[in-house]
Formats: sequence, structure tokens, C-alpha cells
Amino acid sequence: MKFYQSWEGRSCNPERNAWFPATVPGNIQKDYAVANGFADVQFADNYKQFVPLENDHWEYRTTLKFDHVPGEKVFFVTHGINYRYDILLNGECLFSYEGMFRGNEVELTDKLTGKDVLTVHIHPHPKSTRGKAGTRDEANESCNPPVYYGWDWNPRLLISGIWDDTYIETRSDSYIANCELLSEVSDDLSVGTVRCSFDCALPCEILLLDEEGKEVYRGTDKQFTVNAPALWWCNGQGNPTLYTWIVRNAREERTGKIGFRRLRLLRNADARGPKSFPKGRYEAPITVELNNRRIFCKGSNWVNPELFWGEITKERYEELIRLAKECHMNIFRMWGGAGTPKESFYDICDREGILLWQEFVLACNEYTDVGNYMQTLENEATGMIKKFRHHPCLAFWCGGNELFNAWSGMDEQSAPLRLLNKLCYELDYKRPFLYTSPLYGMAHGGYVFYSEDQGGDVMQQFQNSRNTAYTEFGVPSLSDVETLKQIIPADELFPIKETEAWTAHHGFKAWGRSRWVCQDVYERYFGTPDSLEELVAGEQWMQCEGYRGAFEEMRRQWPHCSMGINWDYNEPWITAAGNELIAYPAKINPCYYYVQKAMRPTLFSARIPRFDWKEGETFEAELWLLNDAPEAASGKVHVTAKVGEETFDLLEWSAETDANSHKRGPTVRFVLPRAEGANKVILTLSAENGMESEYEYLYRAKSRKPVLRQLNV
Amino acid sequence: MKFYQSWEGRSCNPERNAWFPATVPGNIQKDYAVANGFADVQFADNYKQFVPLENDHWEYRTTLKFDHVPGEKVFFVTHGINYRYDILLNGECLFSYEGMFRGNEVELTDKLTGKDVLTVHIHPHPKSTRGKAGTRDEANESCNPPVYYGWDWNPRLLISGIWDDTYIETRSDSYIANCELLSEVSDDLSVGTVRCSFDCALPCEILLLDEEGKEVYRGTDKQFTVNAPALWWCNGQGNPTLYTWIVRNAREERTGKIGFRRLRLLRNADARGPKSFPKGRYEAPITVELNNRRIFCKGSNWVNPELFWGEITKERYEELIRLAKECHMNIFRMWGGAGTPKESFYDICDREGILLWQEFVLACNEYTDVGNYMQTLENEATGMIKKFRHHPCLAFWCGGNELFNAWSGMDEQSAPLRLLNKLCYELDYKRPFLYTSPLYGMAHGGYVFYSEDQGGDVMQQFQNSRNTAYTEFGVPSLSDVETLKQIIPADELFPIKETEAWTAHHGFKAWGRSRWVCQDVYERYFGTPDSLEELVAGEQWMQCEGYRGAFEEMRRQWPHCSMGINWDYNEPWITAAGNELIAYPAKINPCYYYVQKAMRPTLFSARIPRFDWKEGETFEAELWLLNDAPEAASGKVHVTAKVGEETFDLLEWSAETDANSHKRGPTVRFVLPRAEGANKVILTLSAENGMESEYEYLYRAKSRKPVLRQLNV
Repeated sequence: MKFYQSWEGRSCNPERNAWFPATVPGNIQKDYAVANGFADVQFADNYKQFVPLENDHWEYRTTLKFDHVPGEKVFFVTHGINYRYDILLNGECLFSYEGMFRGNEVELTDKLTGKDVLTVHIHPHPKSTRGKAGTRDEANESCNPPVYYGWDWNPRLLISGIWDDTYIETRSDSYIANCELLSEVSDDLSVGTVRCSFDCALPCEILLLDEEGKEVYRGTDKQFTVNAPALWWCNGQGNPTLYTWIVRNAREERTGKIGFRRLRLLRNADARGPKSFPKGRYEAPITVELNNRRIFCKGSNWVNPELFWGEITKERYEELIRLAKECHMNIFRMWGGAGTPKESFYDICDREGILLWQEFVLACNEYTDVGNYMQTLENEATGMIKKFRHHPCLAFWCGGNELFNAWSGMDEQSAPLRLLNKLCYELDYKRPFLYTSPLYGMAHGGYVFYSEDQGGDVMQQFQNSRNTAYTEFGVPSLSDVETLKQIIPADELFPIKETEAWTAHHGFKAWGRSRWVCQDVYERYFGTPDSLEELVAGEQWMQCEGYRGAFEEMRRQWPHCSMGINWDYNEPWITAAGNELIAYPAKINPCYYYVQKAMRPTLFSARIPRFDWKEGETFEAELWLLNDAPEAASGKVHVTAKVGEETFDLLEWSAETDANSHKRGPTVRFVLPRAEGANKVILTLSAENGMESEYEYLYRAKSRKPVLRQLNV
Repeated sequence: MKFYQSWEGRSCNPERNAWFPATVPGNIQKDYAVANGFADVQFADNYKQFVPLENDHWEYRTTLKFDHVPGEKVFFVTHGINYRYDILLNGECLFSYEGMFRGNEVELTDKLTGKDVLTVHIHPHPKSTRGKAGTRDEANESCNPPVYYGWDWNPRLLISGIWDDTYIETRSDSYIANCELLSEVSDDLSVGTVRCSFDCALPCEILLLDEEGKEVYRGTDKQFTVNAPALWWCNGQGNPTLYTWIVRNAREERTGKIGFRRLRLLRNADARGPKSFPKGRYEAPITVELNNRRIFCKGSNWVNPELFWGEITKERYEELIRLAKECHMNIFRMWGGAGTPKESFYDICDREGILLWQEFVLACNEYTDVGNYMQTLENEATGMIKKFRHHPCLAFWCGGNELFNAWSGMDEQSAPLRLLNKLCYELDYKRPFLYTSPLYGMAHGGYVFYSEDQGGDVMQQFQNSRNTAYTEFGVPSLSDVETLKQIIPADELFPIKETEAWTAHHGFKAWGRSRWVCQDVYERYFGTPDSLEELVAGEQWMQCEGYRGAFEEMRRQWPHCSMGINWDYNEPWITAAGNELIAYPAKINPCYYYVQKAMRPTLFSARIPRFDWKEGETFEAELWLLNDAPEAASGKVHVTAKVGEETFDLLEWSAETDANSHKRGPTVRFVLPRAEGANKVILTLSAENGMESEYEYLYRAKSRKPVLRQLNV
């Protein structure tokens, strides 16, 4: 039996150590803020109210209330406390731990008096002194999510507390402990094998039910097979079939889901090295093969959807994952800097067919064998692997983000990564493990719509790249005007200046001086904006077409390229500018719809070599039939273009292609006419069955500044 | 007490199962050949005499002779039996094992009758059917050295037998088992730590003596420190200081050597990735840092120095390692296809300061989790790690050769490599581990003096490459005339044709049709040869200057490039043509002396852009002062050139440079004169203290075939 407790909390700082009600799960700084009337953290730079609390110790306490049947054992159970803590019963310390991702349980039975106060003492977050104070460097000797320390989309908030499910549990001899079912399927997919493990003093029965609830197995063998199992597929490739298991005895039962799928990481279709001697290695494998089918992975980078992680609910996950599925995504990269979600997230991804690239909690830092870091990492990683390995959605493990880049300084010889490789091998043998992203062949970036250094606009950048996987890239934009009004004082809204509010919300100094606000890029195309509305509309236009152009180009590069994963999907608070598809809390940005178009399983696509065009130039577009569906596709496209009032009837093309493959078609061309007042060339690919596309690129009549209109999305 | 036995052997094939005397250690096929009067294996294609024996089972037997004090235990001990075998006592099988590199011991005590016959039953070599029969593919499911199955420098010879030290050992309660001392030094090199482990029923004392025999430690602590230890350095960087340890009790003692050194693999000085977005990872670390000093590793690839591995003696190792040291080498790459030597090899390398890049026994095949391969690999790798990890010369482990290339098909996700990474991490934490060679940034090849595809001659190839390490590359030549006469029938010597003898000795079809004979490359420069002597002289000239040009260029690319390791150092039999510096058995090829010149710690070097020059062209050479010594260097060079009778006094240059660094100097230029009959432009860099160099490159007067003279070496 589980018994949830009522908690109160306080800072141990004598200047502010009054008790206040604590929400569990939650974050104690948030409880403190509520009790002390902090101003809205979303507005301006109000998050700085939390800075003075950073070095406080904190305490939770509760007077235990539960029904104790004599003979039963009593445990304190937590799925996660953040970050260094001690568990005390009536003042006696029974357990100490560092790390927020491994659950722990502490037996209380013999220490109970009948009137018991349980205390959770939270230490301040570690702050490594190897690096720059006040930055993510402070996380480089711990398993603490480095985003807490400040990132270019997350304000610095060193939150802590009882952040995941936590309760008192009484256990009789019928208690079923450590119950886990793991499934795998034979190479030819014909036979599934289930391995079951648990500890119980009583005999237990094991059941496996198919999706219709029909019994597939009932018995007591801890290993059994399932013939011709229905397979688990990711979104777009088939049904994410789950089987339900039950382990039970006369008084208790455990239940859960498993899926049968075979997943490997294979080398890309024409993985390359230098063609002639001296000759290096070929590119690292990054093509997902699911159930013996190579697939293109399309998705986004997931980060914590709230600033206060303890407040995240299953419902928050549900709405965000639903939107990803509707966007035709089949993968999230679970970016290492933001730790891992609560387990309900994985259950939903199992159900919805969203693959997960799961990173450990390392990002952009040089983690080394120093102090007790290796032991903490082993504890946390072991906990994570055991917690999540049964999920069919979990595609592969990864050491962390950008560890093989100059700003991190790690490499294949780094002990923490060798440890993670070893632990995954031992505890989760069949699941691939990557040291980091990017590996050889893969790439991160760019994160701008236009850069001369990077070879032009986003279409040019990716059309001229030949990477095996684009696992981060972004196209920034200002948030919409309504959103900006929520977070920026009215008198700072326009013209945009580098104020505290804009800076706090990542408009400035998040990355470079103003990469996310990116007014310089706007002005390159549109000149000086006359209003915030005009500026936002132009930036959103670039972001929409930029994201679409990038994603469609990555798909066109299949099978040499096997992944397109943008930075980022969601963000944990309202930002003034950024790259996210879904604004906080779950507001759909215009670019989401363009990504959704680009990710449709089957569509006609146009490879347009750049964004901006001028009167008199020859506009061109290479036609493609893209098909990620597991069936062959065919269709007819009618291509027309429009500039101002003038229309061009360009081509009809009928095409067909196999499952999970594309067809490259003809290139259409026409000379851009004079069209005073027009600012768009609109290329329309008319087709049936939802395969149509329409591109709006920039057009300028000679010597005219285009008149910008609100973008229709 | 150890008791060596007299052995006899036989094939179990009823057609040829007569007993014959067997040499232990040795190879049973060789014993059979001696007993049956096989013709000289070196000559022509006589090695094919062994092919019919490939699938035989074999047996060794001995009637045990040893002094057995009552109460003592009796063991059969072997350091290596090749490859699958059973140990039987009086017909009863006591032990079975697969793998030649882990030693084993089998207790006999309770089975002894007083009149005992011990039998070693050898199974035929495994032949995987996943691949092409009769090739190295047959080794892809075992830990058998794939060279046995045939390589482009090793004839196919599936040898087996008791190949390493093997005896009966009696053990009383004073026996000291599993004795191992491991040493490490603190990061600042100030404190050495020694960890000692052994099993003995009696108390034992531990001694550590320095190079002069002075006691540094005496006591019974299994861990102790040594303040300010004298460090172990590799050749050219300092003294390879060894300490002697003794573990002893009243009746027995063990002894061995350890050294104190700190070795890491670091990223190269300007490890690169793409400069702009989309941005990948930087190059993999491959710079050796020894005792906190980054060094350039120069050396060669080591392979088995005999066809019959059981016959290899410590003396063979001594002469070959001595020559490497005299060549100024500081590293051998212990190429995975050829397994590992006997342990005396490592003792010598410890003493002489030769670092070892030690590969496991995987090469050019796709090894996967199939059958019992993973278990065999774990057994063998564990044995190798425990056997060799105490050696200071052992720089780092490596999974094997060219596993991340198309002809192998493995990658980071390959289970055998993840297992090796795990084992090295667990058993030898501080020693680096590479998955394979080459990794990202590194390169293998080329292996020709000239190739249009590869960008020209060997000087051009490497001057236009920017790799972090060149860990295999070769410049082939015919063997000298005297050598060829030993192995090729007289009537086939010239003109060279693709006969059985030439093919057997790797002149033809070893790699491509005739890559090693490379008469086509000769003819590109010299036209049709009139004699074998002329052909050999021309090829040796190319090989000598080619190797020198390559090695000096790699050194000039320091610190971005941190290794130059040619293919190969030695070979196991007489070849008609190849890349080796030392011909079988220990005959110095002319190119050895050119490599020796190129590897001198300090020298003046000329970067000459290509090998062949014509009258009227502007010859040029960029001057460098190369210095791999651990002290600063300086000197003055006087540069002159000579073509036919004409001499050019070009430049004097004084230069100095720091320890382990180079100085780039001026470029000299002059127009090549008409010099009928001359075939060389000789560039002389006169200097003192052994820093001088002289380059002989090809010169042609217009429309004249150069008259070739014997090369003076």
C-alpha cells in the first residue's frame, strides 16, 4: 500500500527559515516563491528573484501517516529527489544520495516509533570551480542537468526538491519487488522472447495479453516466447503495438507494457571516407533500422517543458507528444543537458510510436574522473538504464550533447563516456550506444536563416551539405506580438533594444549578441522595420520557409542522410525569440505547420536553391516526390507560379516511387517578371491526396523595397 | 618446480598418423614436415605442401616425468596452445579451450597414477563459412590470427600446436600464485604508486629495487608509494627506467620489472572539424603524451617474424627490436591480424623504450555476436590484458585493424568492440583504448610510389594530406637480386612473369595484380628495364627516397600530425617484393637506412615537392630544422645542389628550435640545367653534429632516357 504524505518545507538559511506548505512532487524554491509572493517568473527578468536562494540548504518534513499492519515492512520510496539529499527519520540520517534520476527506497520499519517525523534535507547544488562562475561550467563535476545553471533558452534557476513520485509504502510478504519484463524479437521477427524478473515470497503468475486483451501467455516460466508477435512500429511506419503484462499473486499485482521490435543503428547507405589513399574510416552509423526496415528519422529536440521540473505532469507530456505525432514526427532527441522526463513520458511515447534518442546528463562540458563524479555517474546511469530499458520507444542511448566539440573537450578516451558505454553494454546489450552527437558524418547547426560564412541562407546551407544526420539545426524568429507583450514591458517593445527583459528572455546575449532576435537578418531582406508587427511577420516568414526548406532537403538527401532533428521542439518558458516549434506552454508557432507540411509521409516537394529572388533572374525549382511511407506512392503534380498578377503554367509531372524512397524529377524554370508592389514568388505544386505544396519565397522588383504583408499561416 | 617434458606428435588422420618427435614450444605441422622431409618452405610455392594437412586433428603426447614431493599439487601449465584443444590425462579429458593467447593451467594432482600419459588434442582450425573459402574470411568467427589464412605478405599456413612455454609444475604451500605488480604515477609525476597482488599460503615480503639495485621498498604492504620515481621514457625522450620487484617467502620468489610513466592519448594540436555550420565533431585523439610531454610517434607495423610462431625465440625479438631502436623508432603498432608475441617481446620493449600500440586479434573482417565468438573473445582479451598490462611499454589498446572500413564492415555499434572497450576499462582503466585504426582524422595508405588517383608520387601524396596520424603506409620494392635467387627458380627471374613462385612470394596477386612488384611504376620513370639488377636498383631508389620523403613530411606536419608508422617493419619469410624495412629473417633493406636518416631526432630536412624533375624546370626545396629531441636544437646548414657536373651553391641558413618542435625555413630554387647522361639531382644539406642530409631525386635531360646507375646505400 502506498501512502502519500503532506509536506512542509523551509530554507535552512536562518534569515528565511519559516516553514511553508510544500507541494510534492514539486520544487521547493517554487513553494518558497509562492509562500513569499514572488512576482510572475515569466515576466521581464523576475527569475532573478531566485538567485539569492541558490546556496541555501532546504528541508522538507512530514509527520508520517499510514496504516501499519503488524509484520509489514515500511519503506520511504522516491522516484526522484533533486539533487543531493539526506533522508532522516526522527533526526537520524538513514540514507544519503547524490543524483536526481535514480529512484531510491529506504526501509524505515525498525526505526518507527508510531509518531514519526521524516525529513528530507536538500544540499545546495554543486558548483564546480573548474570553469567560469555563474555558467553551465559549474555543472561539470556533477550529474546535475546543466540547463539549471543557465542556457540560451532556460534562465538560470537552481531548482531542487522532491520532484518525482514519493510516498510511504507498506509491504507484506505478498509484495512483488523489482518486477521487470524485457522483450526482444528474433532477427527474422518471427519469435518474440519475454524475460521476466521479480522478487516475491509468494508464488506469482505471469500473464501476457495482446492489444485486444487476449491471453498470449499465462504461466510461471520467467522466460517464454511469443510466436509471430505483432510488432511495435514508430509513427508513420505501422502500429505501435503494445502487449500488456501482469505479474500477480493472491493479493497483489504489477502490470506494464512491452513491445516487440528489433532496432539497430546501421551505417548510412553510402557512408563515406576519403575516396583515395591516405584513407580514413567511413562515417559513423546513424541510420535507424526498425524491424529490418531502414527509416528516415524526422523529429525534434526535446527539453524540459517547464522551468520547475517537479510541476511537470503527464498531461503536459500528452499534449506535447500529441502535437509531435500530428506533425508526423517519429523521433525525439532527448537532449542531454535537460536530463530525462518522468516515466509517464516514456509510456506515452511507447503508445504513440515516438522513438527516443536518449542522452545521459552530459552537455557542452568537459566531464572527467574527478572527485566522486564517476561514482555518481555510475549510480545515475545505472538507475536510468534499468528504469527505461523495457520501453520499445527507447531507440538508443547517447553519452550527451556536443561532447566531441571544442566547447566541451571530451573524446573517445574520456572515462565518463567509456563508463557509459560499458554500463549500456552490460545492462542493455542490444540497444545501440553513441558517445555523443554529432559523431563523424553528422552535424549540428546552423542556427540562423542567413550567414555568409555558412554559405548563404538556410536552403543554400543544407543543399550544399552532405551530412549523414542533422541532429540539431534551428531557424530563429521573434515570438509573436501577443506573446512578447506578456514578457516585455510595454515601453521596451519597439524598437527592440538590449534591455534586461529582452536579455532575460534570450533575445540578446543568449548566443552571440542577438542571434535569436536576428533583426540583422530581417534587415538584409526587408530593410528597417516600421513596426514590431512587420518585423515579427518577416521573421516568421523566414522561419517557416527556412524550416520547411531544411527538412525537405534532408529528406531529399536520403538515404545518405537518415535524420533531420531540429533545435528545438518545445521550451520551458516564454521566450522573446528562439527556434522552438511549440512555444510555452503549448502554443503552436507558425513554423510548426510548415514543419508538419515538410514531414508529411508523401508529398511533392520543390528544391528551390535560395530564398530571395529578383526581377529578371531565372527562378528554378527541382521537383521531387518524397515518400517516407511504408508503401509505394504515386501521383501527378501540376506546377504553376505566380508573381504579382502574373501566373506561369510550368509543368505536369507524374511520378511513382517505392516505399521509403523518393523520386527526383524535372527542374522547372522561368524568368521573373517585373511586378511592382509584389514581394513573393509563389510556387504551387497542385496534387491530390494531400500531396500538394505551396512555397512563398521572396521577390523584389528592381530597386524597390518589397511591401511586406502579414504572413498567412 | 617446473619440469619440461619430451613430446611426440602425430596427425590423427589415419592416412598419416605415425608418431614423430615434437618440439615444444613449436608447431606440429612443422614437426610433421621435418619428419616427412618436406622441401624448403621458403622456396617457390613449397608452402602449399601444408595445405592438405589443414583439416587434420593432431595429437601431442608425453609420459610425464617430474619429481613429486608428497603433498605438493601438480599442474599442467601452458602459456599458449594454438588454437582449439583438449588436455587429457590417461585418456580422460580434463580441460578444453579455444584460443591461443590466454595461458591456462590444469590441476592433475588427484588424477595422477604414477605412470601418466598426458595428451594435448588439437582440433582443426575453424573455418567460418560466412565469406569466401580459402581467404581470411574464414577467420571471422574466431580469435585465430587471420594471417594464418593467407595475407599479402604471409602464405596460407594453418599452423597449430603448443606454441609457447609449457611444462608440469609442482606447487607446495610456499607457492606464490597470480603475482602481479602494477605501477602508476601521480599526474604531476611526483609520486609513484605500486599495487601488488598474489596468493600464497605463507607470508611474503615485497621488495622494490631501483636501477642500481638499491632498495626502494621492503615490506608487506600490498600498496606503497615511491617518491620522485625515476620515470620510464620511450626511445629518444629519456631513459626507460625500470624498477625490479621481488615477492618472496622462505622458499620461493617471483621477480619482474615495472616502470613509472603517465601516458595519455590527447587530441592533436589543432584537431579539426568543419569550420562552419553544419558542424561535426573534431578529429579523434591520437597524440601520445608521455610523462606530460606531447611526442611524435615514429615507428613501424610489427608482424609475426616467423611463419611458424612456435619457433620464435627471444633472440629473434632482440635482434629486430635492437634494429628498431637504432632506427630511432619509439613505437611499434602491433597489428591485430598477427596476434601478439610471446611475453619476452614486451620485456625487451620495456627495456629498450619502444612503445606498443597493441591490437586485439581482429583485422579486416566483420566480427559479430555469433556462435561462441563473444565468449572466446572475452576469454582471450581478458588473458591478454592481464598478461601485458603491467608493461610500461604498452601504450594503448586497440580493437584491431581497419575495422571501420568497407572491407571489414564493423563500426561503433559492433558488439565485439564494445566488449573490448568494456574489458579494457574494467581491467586496465588508465590505458587508452581505440576501437580501430584508422579513426576519424587518421589514415592508412597509400602503398605505392606513384598513383595518379592518389595525387602523384609519395611526396605529393603526403604533402597534400593533412591527417592526424599515418598509421600504415608503404612504398614497395622488389627484394634484392641475391634474395630473389633464393626463392625464385633461376629461369623465372627475368623478365618477371606471373609464375607460381612469384605469386607465392607476393609479387603478384598479393594486392592488385602486381602492386608489390610494381614494374609499371618503375617503367613510368625509367622505361623498360634491361636487367633484373637495373629494375631492382630503380625500385629500391624509389623506395628509399619515398620512405624518407614520407616520414620527413609527417614530422613536418607535427603537431597536427603526431604519428608516422609505415607498413611494415619485418616480414615472416622471404618475399619477392614488399614494403618491409627488414627482410626475413633480419636482413636490412636499403630503405631501412633512409628511414633511419628520416627518424634522427634532429636534422635538416628538405621538403621537395616531387620525385622527378626535368631540365629547364625550377627545382625547389623548402628547408626545415626537425627536432624530436627533448632539448632545444640549433645548427647551420649549407645547401648545395649538383646535376651532372654542375653545382649550385644555394644558401646558408642558421636555425634554432625548441624541444620537440620544428622550424620552417626558406625555400631554395634553381633552374635545372642541361646535363646529358645525368639522372639525378643531388641536394646536399651540409651541417654538423649529424644533422646533414642528402637527397637524390630523379633528373632527366630533355628527350633522353636517364642512364640508371646502381644506387649507393
